[in-house]
Amino acid sequence: MPAKIIDGRPVAQRIQGEIKRAVEDLRAKSGAAPGLGVVLVGDDPASAMYVRMKRRACDRAGLRSEARILPAASTQAEVEDAVRAYNADPSIHGILVQLPLPDHINEEAVLNEISLAKDVDGIHPMNLGRLGMRGREPTFTPATPTGVMQLIAETGEAIEGLRAVVIGRSNIVGLPVALMLAKANATVTICHSRTRDLPGTVRAADIVVAAVGRAEYVKGDWIKPGAIVIDVGSNSLPDPDSEKGYRYVGDVEFESACAVAGYITKVPGGVGPMTITMLLSNTLKAARRSLEA
Amino acid sequence: MPAKIIDGRPVAQRIQGEIKRAVEDLRAKSGAAPGLGVVLVGDDPASAMYVRMKRRACDRAGLRSEARILPAASTQAEVEDAVRAYNADPSIHGILVQLPLPDHINEEAVLNEISLAKDVDGIHPMNLGRLGMRGREPTFTPATPTGVMQLIAETGEAIEGLRAVVIGRSNIVGLPVALMLAKANATVTICHSRTRDLPGTVRAADIVVAAVGRAEYVKGDWIKPGAIVIDVGSNSLPDPDSEKGYRYVGDVEFESACAVAGYITKVPGGVGPMTITMLLSNTLKAARRSLEA
Repeated sequence: MPAKIIDGRPVAQRIQGEIKRAVEDLRAKSGAAPGLGVVLVGDDPASAMYVRMKRRACDRAGLRSEARILPAASTQAEVEDAVRAYNADPSIHGILVQLPLPDHINEEAVLNEISLAKDVDGIHPMNLGRLGMRGREPTFTPATPTGVMQLIAETGEAIEGLRAVVIGRSNIVGLPVALMLAKANATVTICHSRTRDLPGTVRAADIVVAAVGRAEYVKGDWIKPGAIVIDVGSNSLPDPDSEKGYRYVGDVEFESACAVAGYITKVPGGVGPMTITMLLSNTLKAARRSLEA
Repeated sequence: MPAKIIDGRPVAQRIQGEIKRAVEDLRAKSGAAPGLGVVLVGDDPASAMYVRMKRRACDRAGLRSEARILPAASTQAEVEDAVRAYNADPSIHGILVQLPLPDHINEEAVLNEISLAKDVDGIHPMNLGRLGMRGREPTFTPATPTGVMQLIAETGEAIEGLRAVVIGRSNIVGLPVALMLAKANATVTICHSRTRDLPGTVRAADIVVAAVGRAEYVKGDWIKPGAIVIDVGSNSLPDPDSEKGYRYVGDVEFESACAVAGYITKVPGGVGPMTITMLLSNTLKAARRSLEA
């Protein structure tokens, strides 16, 4: 029996609908809408596409969004100034710096400039520390990891006591997902490029989160029968049959994994829509804190 | 063949000797010694003993230490004021709040008061976030976890690619040890009270760090032959044969584990001396940053 598909689109739509109603409420009470400020540096087409998708989602849900698009040759000071201007702007409640930044920009220094109260991406070290620590709560939980947790929740399976394997340990996905799964009482293993016998390690897992950025890297015969598979990857592969000449695939080989897993997400249409939704949700939260305070 | 004992005492002595020389250097150059300020609330005998041991180690290595000992009935404001006074005192470079605090005190709020530049225990959420994140470094690495990593290094085994299991996920030991092992390229599994089949999980590990706070909980037949076993526990057991009426044991059943492991630490004499040493090391680091700036 093939896996049940965890479709992120209706989940995202449902939550975005709730956000839209909450935004209307907030606007009725305070006269103001939540505002997202985006900083984009350079002209990477994928980054530009992500920014467009985020701004469109803001429009649909009634959030105000604006973007500062800086040339690739901008200086460190110019990028940091763009962040500081949003920090100082009371109509902006959340700030998103689209990553990656050009190589000559110190990413850490830019992200450190984001006011903790406006860190709707939830990637400030302070937020990550609190995310992992018992008895602490971050100001915002990071967008993609929160989306991953939401999709796992959609299966209706209790996470507590399950074995989870997270493949990849990036600051914005792998690491925070591992911390969130541990806080939800899963037994979590963090895997990465230096992991020996990755297939054997994945085979022991009831939950697999693949966030490694390599097309179709995780094979079906690595998956434990019945496991929950969340695919965070989004890799373009050449595809002459497609109009664009390429198609997007995840980090998991979908067909072979689908035959074994209990639940699996699709790429596109899985984690992606959830990431945007969680960004909207955090921006709404930031605006409420500011406008209802 | 029984395991090689990783003896923390000579390692601690060696490092404390290096610290002593560095303190003399600093004193010669700047005229000042590193200063540690300890806040102790209440009269828990174990806490009082730990504080005495830390102050004695400061004396031996030439660091200045002082303690503010507050009554158990102190208010939140009084405890926080003690921390703030040390923050403002230029002769104090490191601040240690001895945990646990009495139940009526909000521990998080007290710890948040510690200036990041003086957080020599390395337990600020900002430090923990940076500890886990790639490309980031904490202001200070937490004392006990750094001691654990030092003892693993003493074995001479390369950590990269090894499977590590951390039992316990406390903010001050389990969680930061797991983050440090992952940064050192081990494949890390975080286990805790909800973990199913803990013996089977531990049996797969090349490195076992036990930080669960239960006397002799981890048994020898859980250990993979040849594994490195680091025992962070320190539990008192009644012992009529001892003069004091009790003895300290770790979280690992030493005799049975020693017969299987490749390397193992003892309790006492393993991680304990390293924790104090790392606290001295961090206080020296803080003093250098302040005095040599």
